[in-house]
Amino acid sequence: MSGSGVEWIVEAYGCAADALADVARLQRLFDAVIGELGLQAVGQPLWHKFPGPGGVTGLCLLAESHIACHTFPEYGSLCLNVFCCRLRPEWDFAACLRREFAASRVSVRRVMRHYRDDSTAHHTANGELSELRRGDPFPVV
Amino acid sequence: MSGSGVEWIVEAYGCAADALADVARLQRLFDAVIGELGLQAVGQPLWHKFPGPGGVTGLCLLAESHIACHTFPEYGSLCLNVFCCRLRPEWDFAACLRREFAASRVSVRRVMRHYRDDSTAHHTANGELSELRRGDPFPVV
Repeated sequence: MSGSGVEWIVEAYGCAADALADVARLQRLFDAVIGELGLQAVGQPLWHKFPGPGGVTGLCLLAESHIACHTFPEYGSLCLNVFCCRLRPEWDFAACLRREFAASRVSVRRVMRHYRDDSTAHHTANGELSELRRGDPFPVV
Repeated sequence: MSGSGVEWIVEAYGCAADALADVARLQRLFDAVIGELGLQAVGQPLWHKFPGPGGVTGLCLLAESHIACHTFPEYGSLCLNVFCCRLRPEWDFAACLRREFAASRVSVRRVMRHYRDDSTAHHTANGELSELRRGDPFPVV
């Protein structure tokens, strides 16, 4: 392993509320991410449907880390994390989320996860807290 | 709910390798996060110990979203995600990780998760990809 992984932090907005409450459809999202990024699920995913108008949470353990999603039918939104401890090429989250959930807008943030402490890199101090806000000027890859 | 949650993305380095392979100790980390941030676990956490020198992955579904951790004993490191769909005050991840895992350095990044699409905020474009790198100049909270 290279000592660095990647995590995609994805938000989809304007989604169809019924799709966001549909565990089978969310499982298809997991299957697409796993299949197309060449990942390997370990065991069965964990799904929880919150009562009433609440959404769905799903967690899936991977040989390469994990996938997590939370849906908010009341806001028409979905939050997804895909953490992969090996670097992977980009995947078109937006296309999948538009197709499966009718998302009108998708935000994808890519966060490097360094599990090897590289003393040649820029370091944050012990316990330093940084904040990433939507709209901050990050370099676009 | 306010329409925004928060996710802490935490890396701990220089940890004791045996502590990183100790599921009971990792469960104590989850318990501390859950207890001290006033969160509520839904069901049992999912733990997986990878064979040989491999680390441990843990996932825990919360009423407020999820916690995930991955340990890398071969690198002396631990990667933690705590996603909470309601805003919470900061918690001293560094102190806990130093105490329980003998971490010599802890990096904490705080990522806003907007599940309400706020059209008054700065928007990223559809499918836009942003990258957060260690050492980028983020505002310190």
